Amino acid sequence: MSKLAYASEKIKAPSLVSLQTLFEGRMDQVNEKILKSLECSVPLIQDIAGYLIKQGGKRLRPLLTLASAELCGYKGHRHVGLASAVEFIHTATLLHDDVVDESALRRGAATANTIWNNTASVLVGDFLFSRAFQLMVEDGSLDVLKVLSQASATIAEGEVMQLASARNLNLREENYLAVIGAKTACLFEAATHVGALVADASSEKCEALRKFGFNLGMAFQLTDDALDYCATGESLGKHVGDDFAEGKVTLPILITYHAATEIEKAFIKKCFVDLTQEPQDLTRMIKLIHDKGALQAVSAKAQSYLNNARECLKIFEETSLKSTLLETLDFVLVRNH
Amino acid sequence: MSKLAYASEKIKAPSLVSLQTLFEGRMDQVNEKILKSLECSVPLIQDIAGYLIKQGGKRLRPLLTLASAELCGYKGHRHVGLASAVEFIHTATLLHDDVVDESALRRGAATANTIWNNTASVLVGDFLFSRAFQLMVEDGSLDVLKVLSQASATIAEGEVMQLASARNLNLREENYLAVIGAKTACLFEAATHVGALVADASSEKCEALRKFGFNLGMAFQLTDDALDYCATGESLGKHVGDDFAEGKVTLPILITYHAATEIEKAFIKKCFVDLTQEPQDLTRMIKLIHDKGALQAVSAKAQSYLNNARECLKIFEETSLKSTLLETLDFVLVRNH
Repeated sequence: MSKLAYASEKIKAPSLVSLQTLFEGRMDQVNEKILKSLECSVPLIQDIAGYLIKQGGKRLRPLLTLASAELCGYKGHRHVGLASAVEFIHTATLLHDDVVDESALRRGAATANTIWNNTASVLVGDFLFSRAFQLMVEDGSLDVLKVLSQASATIAEGEVMQLASARNLNLREENYLAVIGAKTACLFEAATHVGALVADASSEKCEALRKFGFNLGMAFQLTDDALDYCATGESLGKHVGDDFAEGKVTLPILITYHAATEIEKAFIKKCFVDLTQEPQDLTRMIKLIHDKGALQAVSAKAQSYLNNARECLKIFEETSLKSTLLETLDFVLVRNH
Repeated sequence: MSKLAYASEKIKAPSLVSLQTLFEGRMDQVNEKILKSLECSVPLIQDIAGYLIKQGGKRLRPLLTLASAELCGYKGHRHVGLASAVEFIHTATLLHDDVVDESALRRGAATANTIWNNTASVLVGDFLFSRAFQLMVEDGSLDVLKVLSQASATIAEGEVMQLASARNLNLREENYLAVIGAKTACLFEAATHVGALVADASSEKCEALRKFGFNLGMAFQLTDDALDYCATGESLGKHVGDDFAEGKVTLPILITYHAATEIEKAFIKKCFVDLTQEPQDLTRMIKLIHDKGALQAVSAKAQSYLNNARECLKIFEETSLKSTLLETLDFVLVRNH
């Protein structure tokens, strides 16, 4: 069911609220752990990191770590520290991403690098990344350290792959999927995998939750790329057309380009390769994307990843936690933020 | 004995050659490990990281890890992987440092960010940092992971402290020492500490080697800061006056400012606070530094750290390896690269 359909039928659209409510207490502990781990002797670090952490966002990744652990019957406290580590890695990559993208708006607020500067963003990102590893070392599981250090390397690889394929309108869809798999889905994958590991789950359950996270992450990023051409600036927390302004070639663009006439191709090249954009070009691009049915195609792709994710949970017994996780999958597709 | 004295008396100046020769075979293994760990599916990462690693530099930090382990009687191979991890962390911080400093020259060659760009430097730095942790996880010692994750966080803190105290000519010497302790000496400290840990040395020896590394690192950075106002561009591998051009307030500047007349203070402020520099200003600054005896003062400070480092080795029996490490201390003071 599309976002519009939910709005017109006045039924409750899937949201993150159930998951957030279910883990409210645990997330308070995660937030406490995060604030405690930010403590250091350098005020500027506390300012920047604190600012970012307070922006907060959805906290989807740490929520997934908590939920995965408890889905496997975990009753302890270790997942709180590891969920914090996952959020630190995410925040560090956001900081370095801001330097890379030169995004002026992130999660609806000014990005760290417009308030401070690139330099501080790089260094505070490094600090958060190190703190993430300190949290993992404190936890003491080499399996967890292995998963998250591998994920960190893969994220960096994904970002560099994206850089290397910038302005390439002939990028194959499979290569695009490899990029978002590395830069985004990989941390979702690690977040859920780590949850299962901490619960000492069977290798079958570990594998199922790992794949669940990956597929959810793929759908998340595909939806994100589509939202850049349909959401309103306020609800997404970034401007519609940010990707456009940066000339970031995402799947909606690749699909549109592939289906475009020669004249339309020339226009897309002008916008994404030459980066010479007139004020009315975004509107024209959005219309073109719409005409070629690119957003539906992206949405269908996202839906197929969500179906995979749903499959992964089949081996778990029916509990209210499992239902909540399934609702989270629906949220990913219809979210507007 | 000063560098000039060595030159005029035609005796062999202390160098790194003995240490490098002693560990030639092991360092080949380290280089092999480094190249193997750089393997990934993204050509741009291999290009940038490979370029940097080939520039090579002195490899002082991994050498210290190897030497510390073997000074404690270690006969295995684990120190090779950990020395590689230490070099990766060092190279990652250099990459992020280049973004921060906007240095055009590093180790005598163009920096990565002038050849590629800031973006790539940030991301490849992240990749190397992650790989360093993967190497540690592969090694499997939580003690080692603890030391190096703490060091990484401290380095980032040190860099941010430096940023926060930029252009502050009234910075207290102790605060300056805290900055270089965190951004530089800390990794030397970790490099030697990790060597002792891998050798399963007594806590007394671990502590001695940890302190040895820290003191050596302090002397190293103090000498580096002094060299910026006395070495030739070719031998140091960066231009004399780089720190000056960036308005980086180092100890030679703090000492000179403290001893300066009001007129001289106004000149120093113009150069380091307003950053309005005329072509002849560097020459005038070097003369001022010379007149106030600032380089001798910095050298004496470095010497006192080296004396501390020498003390730390007292508990180890007299071996050729120990003599070589002591020679390395002399090298730190008289090096011109």
